[in-house]
Amino acid sequence: MGVVVNLDGERVKKTGLETLTALVAKDMGAVNELILRHMDSPVDLIPQLAGHLVAAGGKRLRPMLTLAASRLCGYEGGRHIGLATCVEFIHTATLLHDDVVDESALRRGLASANALWGNKASVLVGDYLFSRSFELMVADGSLRVLSILSRASAIIAEGEVMQLITANDTQTGEPAYLEVIKAKTAQLFAAACRLGAVVAERPSVEEDALETFGMNLGIAFQLIDDVLDYSAKQATLGKTVGDDFREGKITLPVVLAFRRGDEGQRTFWRRTLEDLEQQPEDLEKAILLLQKHDALTDSVERARHYSAMARDALGIFDDGPEKQALLEVIDDCMERAY
Amino acid sequence: MGVVVNLDGERVKKTGLETLTALVAKDMGAVNELILRHMDSPVDLIPQLAGHLVAAGGKRLRPMLTLAASRLCGYEGGRHIGLATCVEFIHTATLLHDDVVDESALRRGLASANALWGNKASVLVGDYLFSRSFELMVADGSLRVLSILSRASAIIAEGEVMQLITANDTQTGEPAYLEVIKAKTAQLFAAACRLGAVVAERPSVEEDALETFGMNLGIAFQLIDDVLDYSAKQATLGKTVGDDFREGKITLPVVLAFRRGDEGQRTFWRRTLEDLEQQPEDLEKAILLLQKHDALTDSVERARHYSAMARDALGIFDDGPEKQALLEVIDDCMERAY
Repeated sequence: MGVVVNLDGERVKKTGLETLTALVAKDMGAVNELILRHMDSPVDLIPQLAGHLVAAGGKRLRPMLTLAASRLCGYEGGRHIGLATCVEFIHTATLLHDDVVDESALRRGLASANALWGNKASVLVGDYLFSRSFELMVADGSLRVLSILSRASAIIAEGEVMQLITANDTQTGEPAYLEVIKAKTAQLFAAACRLGAVVAERPSVEEDALETFGMNLGIAFQLIDDVLDYSAKQATLGKTVGDDFREGKITLPVVLAFRRGDEGQRTFWRRTLEDLEQQPEDLEKAILLLQKHDALTDSVERARHYSAMARDALGIFDDGPEKQALLEVIDDCMERAY
Repeated sequence: MGVVVNLDGERVKKTGLETLTALVAKDMGAVNELILRHMDSPVDLIPQLAGHLVAAGGKRLRPMLTLAASRLCGYEGGRHIGLATCVEFIHTATLLHDDVVDESALRRGLASANALWGNKASVLVGDYLFSRSFELMVADGSLRVLSILSRASAIIAEGEVMQLITANDTQTGEPAYLEVIKAKTAQLFAAACRLGAVVAERPSVEEDALETFGMNLGIAFQLIDDVLDYSAKQATLGKTVGDDFREGKITLPVVLAFRRGDEGQRTFWRRTLEDLEQQPEDLEKAILLLQKHDALTDSVERARHYSAMARDALGIFDDGPEKQALLEVIDDCMERAY
């Protein structure tokens, strides 16, 4: 974690994310303005719903990656503002669509994240944001950028469909899990970072390095996220433990525990995650099984592998505040697990 | 309706749509191939669900408009194939998202068009098709085209949100209704037609004329569609009568009958369309009220107005088979009502 000196001369410990946030604060202000401007519409529901999500949406890691990557590449123009906004819009649209409740899920009586406005509003406002992000890209005028982001969007959508299929399927193995998180999470991290080198018109080796950094950071990020869903640490982050379990999502901790378990344990996973027949004590039992098989700690170890690759990908860039901040974001991601 | 001589020398009556279909048959074959190629994915659910919709989806009017408009403008290249495919993908994605069932709608026990795969699959496969259509546009390489279609997409999404808001609101007036159908239906017709002049690099007066043709055809098309939902004719077209009524959609026939009715009748509309408290005999009663107030025939008259504008917009083009086919499509649209 970085140590900085604040205005009063005190030494204050910052997390990597805070370091990054401070570093790109001015650019991020411009991004926020652009976000508000482009989600505006005479149709009130659009700024209402989108604003709710953006206000709640928190850390804006993805657009900050675009901003920091651009600066890392020495970019001094203004195009990175619009592109960071595109990245955030794509992410927000994905979140809205991700929250759509399935008919079968409803029957299971699960609460929906879009309870306030309903499925249909989430879908349509998501479409609106997605279309606006393409309008912004077109305004930027670079076919290279359009190609990177339209490709990323298609891969994200494909990954979301893949996840839908592997959900509730305990047969899912580690490669299928990895393919899903690469597509649905890491792809946008990778594109967000690559754009930095693209706007700065840097050689392809730097584009590739930033893509590798983003891809591996994204994988590590999602792995830790999936571990946290079964971790007491999650509660301290203000999130609910066990959401993935209740939905029957097959994440790496479950993949490992299922494969390492005996037939009785597999029956338990099938009942709870495939048939979604869950008793109040089942979540606790699941966590005990995950711990017994080191499934959580080993998932963190897998994340460490990807975070190491992310770190090394930045090796070709000169040291400086942007590189330092991006490295600290990796540390941050890993520290979340403890 | 056109009269053509077939291979056996017989004179065969064709509908406008059939004339158009025959005229662009070869190009449409190429579009169909491209559609199949681009909806393919290693994730089986994608070609399955998309294929189901495309196979069922019928007439492919929108891409045919792009093909015919391109030929009308003397275009002889191959770009119109890809662009027509983009148009159809955007339409198909919209259909998929349009069919997403709201949580509240579910509670009302309505059947869903996406019953086979569920809400979530419809949303995600729609996103995939939408992203693929942008990838295709990027491959085409024209920022003009990208600008037209990304703008159209944003307007369509905005229109869909508007429709969601006006649904179940009997206060909706004719201007609000028109705004919705312009955005959600006519905008894509307009863009599909304008692209013809764009690929052919024709002067902006021709772009505008084709846009005007498409826009007004689209409005007339949707008006007739909304009339047919209350018409016995609908049954002969293999569709269900009363879908809009059951969902509480406020279409022009209802707007007119509500405004022309007395307080007792307005109470009826409020109960059935706002509160969705419907008895088995209510649909029949609604149709009687619509007839009593000439709401259906006057909606057809409104459509006639727009179809006349569509017809006149084509006036600047030389006569020829494409112009003839497009004019017959207008006739077709109007004849559907009888």
